[in-house]
This record gives sequence, structure tokens and C-alpha cells, in this order.
Amino acid sequence: MMRTRPLKVALLGCGVVGSEVARIMTTHADDLAARIGAPVELAGVAVRRPSKVREGIPAELITTDATALVKRGDIDVVVEVIGGIEPARTLITTAFEHGASVVSANKALLAEDGATLYAAAEEHGRDLYFEAAVAGAIPLIRPLRESLAGDKINRVMGIVNGTTNFILDAMDTSGAGYSEALDEATALGYAEADPTADVEGFDAAAKAAILAGIAFHTRVRLDDVYREGMTEVTSADFASAKRMGCTIKLLAICERAADGESVTARVHPAMIPLSHPLASVREAYNAVFVEAEAAGQLMFYGPGAGGSPTASAVLGDLVAVCRNKLNEATGPGESAYTQLPVSPMGDVVTRYHISLDVADKPGVLAQVATVFAEHGVSIDTVRQQGKDGEASLVVVTHRAPDAALSGTVEALRKLDTVRGVASIMRVEGE
Amino acid sequence: MMRTRPLKVALLGCGVVGSEVARIMTTHADDLAARIGAPVELAGVAVRRPSKVREGIPAELITTDATALVKRGDIDVVVEVIGGIEPARTLITTAFEHGASVVSANKALLAEDGATLYAAAEEHGRDLYFEAAVAGAIPLIRPLRESLAGDKINRVMGIVNGTTNFILDAMDTSGAGYSEALDEATALGYAEADPTADVEGFDAAAKAAILAGIAFHTRVRLDDVYREGMTEVTSADFASAKRMGCTIKLLAICERAADGESVTARVHPAMIPLSHPLASVREAYNAVFVEAEAAGQLMFYGPGAGGSPTASAVLGDLVAVCRNKLNEATGPGESAYTQLPVSPMGDVVTRYHISLDVADKPGVLAQVATVFAEHGVSIDTVRQQGKDGEASLVVVTHRAPDAALSGTVEALRKLDTVRGVASIMRVEGE
Repeated sequence: MMRTRPLKVALLGCGVVGSEVARIMTTHADDLAARIGAPVELAGVAVRRPSKVREGIPAELITTDATALVKRGDIDVVVEVIGGIEPARTLITTAFEHGASVVSANKALLAEDGATLYAAAEEHGRDLYFEAAVAGAIPLIRPLRESLAGDKINRVMGIVNGTTNFILDAMDTSGAGYSEALDEATALGYAEADPTADVEGFDAAAKAAILAGIAFHTRVRLDDVYREGMTEVTSADFASAKRMGCTIKLLAICERAADGESVTARVHPAMIPLSHPLASVREAYNAVFVEAEAAGQLMFYGPGAGGSPTASAVLGDLVAVCRNKLNEATGPGESAYTQLPVSPMGDVVTRYHISLDVADKPGVLAQVATVFAEHGVSIDTVRQQGKDGEASLVVVTHRAPDAALSGTVEALRKLDTVRGVASIMRVEGE
Repeated sequence: MMRTRPLKVALLGCGVVGSEVARIMTTHADDLAARIGAPVELAGVAVRRPSKVREGIPAELITTDATALVKRGDIDVVVEVIGGIEPARTLITTAFEHGASVVSANKALLAEDGATLYAAAEEHGRDLYFEAAVAGAIPLIRPLRESLAGDKINRVMGIVNGTTNFILDAMDTSGAGYSEALDEATALGYAEADPTADVEGFDAAAKAAILAGIAFHTRVRLDDVYREGMTEVTSADFASAKRMGCTIKLLAICERAADGESVTARVHPAMIPLSHPLASVREAYNAVFVEAEAAGQLMFYGPGAGGSPTASAVLGDLVAVCRNKLNEATGPGESAYTQLPVSPMGDVVTRYHISLDVADKPGVLAQVATVFAEHGVSIDTVRQQGKDGEASLVVVTHRAPDAALSGTVEALRKLDTVRGVASIMRVEGE
């Protein structure tokens, strides 16, 4: 029962992802038509530089006027792969107003102002799909929104930034320092010329906001996500991690509080045991661990970025949105009914691994232990090493609120016998 | 915009999975209602033994007349968790005829006669969802059917039977033999009193048929799946595997032929490198590796069985089917448009690891090598060990058609100098 009038697709952006989407739409047109039940046709491509040669895309489809394209009125689906907040937001809401559904890969916009997009989609009875916004080709948004819709998700923890995983993996494997590993990642094309968004955790934080919102059926914005980058991770930290049977990963962690009344979302480097499935995620791969009440522990693994993997996710959404259009139906919209508040980082319960440089004299350990006790933080292990009047003390705590842990560190810094706090890292995944 | 008339659900079967579905429908009724947009109500539960006490299920919902239940006409969704071919098939098709959509966990029926179910669903404009039929709670059917709908899947390879993975993991870890490991699995409840369906690979073969059909958009039935159980795997095989840097897993492998014109599906024990992500899947966990043209390599991991995980998958489907019902739409139906034929095992291209007991005299290796050459099978490595006039020869081949490999083995058996073929195992995952 193939419909012959094609569904019309407008593509906003024709960079690495957009050009791959266009290519697959052409080369796999028959498969897409069979799976959708109607052919899909590229009806226009909005770009910034119209003079650039774009293989396989007829010149007459190219336009610099994205607004006119989304306003045409005959567009069934707008695929937005330009990124950033504006003009993407206005283009998407305009697309909904003019009857199109939207497939987006725009994590920054979804994390910043997803609610506006969802509201516009709902007002006009259209779909907003965005599998490609988190973890590239790895099916994650759909499993969370649909497969686990009958379950209660308590935790989402993952490696959602390939650049930083590549750098940390290189540091772990070769013993290289951060700068050296970053240089390697840049040379191999894994890091951008300005790596700030990746290494400072902004990219992962946007993804954490999106994942937390979907997992807990509440609104979580980028500003709600605690964020620490990984630029200060040293080879000494990796050595400490190894001594504990751990490695270091930049993790995005979304959790439901033990009492179920709030949620948290955070991004920071953390030590995780080598036995944890996330520990063996190498190079630029992504992986996300999901814990749900009935399902138990699930993991999703794959390439987290790149033109082809991201295009795969976009096209999967395109097929779904086109099917919905033919069905005159819509897929799941925003689900924020729980309205659970997002708690600050201080409320997160976690463990610390703390390296202190201390004076090598009797009584130091007792002083340090007293500070932990005063803040209600229980010590798991202490390791002491001393030479030439200087000593180092490595303390690993039991689980405690992050506020109590950071209060402890602040108080330790004030001790005369503590010369410095060499490093602090959270320990996760146990 | 909550609808107040509840959607009515009939549950067929109230064993480990069914009772957990009923329990979650009750305890999480508010969440389910919010996610669906209407309350869902358990309208009837068909069981074999009505006298059994079923906590939390009102006695008036219990019936032994499953046929009358699915014929009631007011049922929106039938959840089938009784398993087996009949009466499940007739109950499902009757449910469609009477206006209900169906959520099923019935891998045997779907593998045996999925086409009949799909056809009945389509004829009556209803949904057939079955995430729970393969790999328990792991979202796999939906990612294959929907997330990867814009991609071309070339390979699905996975551990889809928890019982056999538990046994093989125990053999690998403890050096135990098959019988001993099976006893442990039985004692711990991982293996049934009659473990045939698991250890002979029937369960995994049914799942392979389902996965292959969906991945390649063609019809694959249980009979199309080559099947070898794992009862003959020995601790000597594990020792050989270790020497090669491998372990042994019972794998379900669905592949598109290199020329794209046919597909294969098979279940057998295989050696895989320890560095392969599937090698580290322990105990009764399942994991499935998917290779797609654009997405690259993806892996899905989690508990493959058990009441709660399976119920999670059933309820995810229930939410989707209920949403579709409210939308007066249906989700994806059968997609078998490629009509790719299923090739026999002989056409599969793979590698063999062969252990031979041979006479310890000059010229044996030359004789053996000649047999490989005559069958067009190229040898990767040979390892020879000899003592007291007896010797063993371990040959690992390069990739060759399975027919050529088994022809080689047959010819080797006829050599006077070959006393016996101690073991043959395929090598995968490279």
C-alpha cells in the first residue's frame, strides 16, 4: 500500500551530518520508501555558503533562506542539523507553525530550551524527535522514552562525550599528560581547534540535562546540571586510580534521590572500578548505563559522534516521523508530569578520593581524621606515604553528601599540617 | 488532557512474568496513566489454575476461559505471556479479530509463525508488539525496528540465552565441565529441570529468527536457523580458547551475505577474542552486537530473562500500544519487503578451530595440510604437540565457506594418520 505522493523533507544545515543525511536519503531511497510506506523527497537544503559544491545535491534545492524554506507550507519534516540556540530555535518553532514535524540533533538547544520546542510541537500537533542529540547513533532517547515507558528509571550514568573519552583513554593507556593527550586527539580529528565545549563538560552537561528530563519525566535545563571539566586530571590521578583498581572517566550522572522526591544531574571526572562495564569503553566510543526498577541494569554502547552515526539516528527519527505523518498521529511528546525538582550538587551522595600533601610528623593522621568526623564523613581507607619530612595521605571516603565532602576538604585546607590538597576526585560505579 | 475512560487490558497467563505485569500495573498505575494519557485497567486474567492465590489480583478478574476473555469486545490490549504455539496463536488472532492490539513475549510462536500474527494484526488495523520476546528487558526489537529504520543492518550477533551463558561462564571461570556447570545453574534456578530448549540452542534459534527477520526486512523462520547446542563444549575447548586469547560463547548470528542478495541465521558455540565486548558478558546476562552501515557497531546489554525485566519490556510495549490506540494509529507492522532468501549454513563464511589426534610420525602435517588445500581452505596457524607416538594438531583456518570447512573435516577423518577429531569450533568476532 505505497502512497505515491512523496513526503517532503527540508534540511537545515549541510555540514558533516547534513550531507550524510542527504546522501543516504538518495542512495537508500527505495528502502526508506518501503519502510515508511511512501517515498521521501529532499525538497530544500538551507546552507550558509551556497557556492560550496555539494555532491549529489541538485543546485536548485540549495537556499540561504532557511526561514522561507520552513515557511513553504508543503514541507512534511524539517531536519535541523545546524546546531546552536539561534536561529535554530526560531526555525524549529516556525516549522511547527507551518505544519512540519521536526527531527533535530541540537543538544544545546534542547538542553537550554526544550520546553519551548515541545510546547510548539504540541500546540501544532507535530512531532519533535531528537535521537541524534545524545550519543550519536546509539539508540538511547527512544529506549528511554518508549521501551522503558512502563518502568521507573532510577539512574542514568554514561560516557556521552567521545572527545574527552579519547583523551582520558589515551592518558590511561600511554601515561601521557592531559596536554599531550589533547594534542593527539586534535591531530587525529577527535578534538576541535577550540576544545572548550568538550573538555569543560558543556557538551556532556547538555546531554545530561536531556537524559535526566526524559528519564525522570521532569524538566531539567542545562543550568540545573552541575559541571566540572576534565582539564585538571593528571597522570598522578591515573596512577592513584590504578592503585585502587579503577580508571578515570568523564561521566554524566542523572539520579533520582533515595526518597524519590528530587533528582540530580551532574558531569565530572570520576574514578570507576575496572570491573564496571563503562571502564572498558575505549577511544571515542560512548556508552550509557541505565538502572530501572524492573529492567535492572542495561547498557547501550556505540559510536557517539561522527557524520554517519549521527545521520543514522536522524534517519531513524525521520522514518518514525514520516510514519506518524501518514498515520495522522504523533509520537510521544514532552513528559514532565512528575515535576520533580533538581537538587543542587551538595545533595548528591557520592564518595571522594582525596590526595593530601601533609607534614610528616606524628598526629597528622589523627588531625585529618578528626576533620572528617566533624563533618560526618566516614573514612573507608587511608594510605600514608612519607619521606624527607613530607608525606602524602590518600583518603577514600564512604558515601556522604557532596556538601559534607566539600566542607571537609575546605576544613582540611585550613589545617597547618596540610600543605596542600593535591587532588580530589569522586568515586562512582559501585 | 487525560482521558478518563480507562483502556482495558486482558492478561493471558499469570506466571512469573504475568504476575509481575499485573503488580506493576497496579503499583505504578498513576505513572502509566500519565505516560499513556489515559488510565489502564486490568480487565481480566486468564489462568490454568484458578484456585491458586494471586496476591493483588481481584478474584473476580480471574478466568480459565481465555477465549471468552479475548472475545469480549471491550478489551483494548491483550498481553500474551503464556508461551508456546497453541492456544497462544489462536488467542492472539482472535484478539485481533475482536478489536484488541497484542503485546506478546512469545518467541517460539513469533519464530514459528510470526507472519500469521502480523497478517492478522494488519487485517484488523491493530498493533503487534513483542519487545519481551528477545533478550528480556534489553530494548532491542524497538531499536532494530525503529531507531535503525533509516540504516542498513549487516550483522546482528549476540548472547541471547542467559542459561547457556551462565553455564559457559562458570566453565570458563572455574574450569568445571559441562555437567558440573549445568548442575550449578540448575541449583541456582538459572536452568530448568529439562534444560533442552536452552542448551540445545532452540531458544536462541527462535530469537535469531526474530532478529534476522526484523534486521533484514525479510521472513526468517525457526527452520531457517542453523542450530548447534553447547552440550559438547569441554573444558579442553576452554583451554584451547584461552591459548588463542579467546573464550567460548553460545552465539546467535544473523548476517547479510557479502553480495547483499541473501541472509543467514545460526546459533552455535564459538570462540571469540577476549577483547570483543561480548567476551565480558558474564553470568546470565545477554548482550547483542549490531553492525549497521551508517551507525557502525552498537551493543545492547542487560538481563535477558526473569520476571521483572521481562515485565519491563511488556509494559513498555503496553504504553506504546495504548498511546497508538488513543491516537487511532498503529506502530510499525511486518516489514518483509526485501524478500531476501535465507541461505543454508554451508554458505556461511567463518573460521574453524580444529583439534586432531594424529599419529606422531613424519609427514602427517603435510598430509593434513594437503587436505585443507584440496578443499580451498587456507590455514592461519598450526600448533603441534607430541608424545609417545601420539600427537595432537590444532589448526585454525582463515575464513572459508562452512561447506568447505566441514568437507575438510570429513576428509581429515578418513586419513589413516588422523586417529580422531577431538573438537571443532567456529571462531567469530574478529
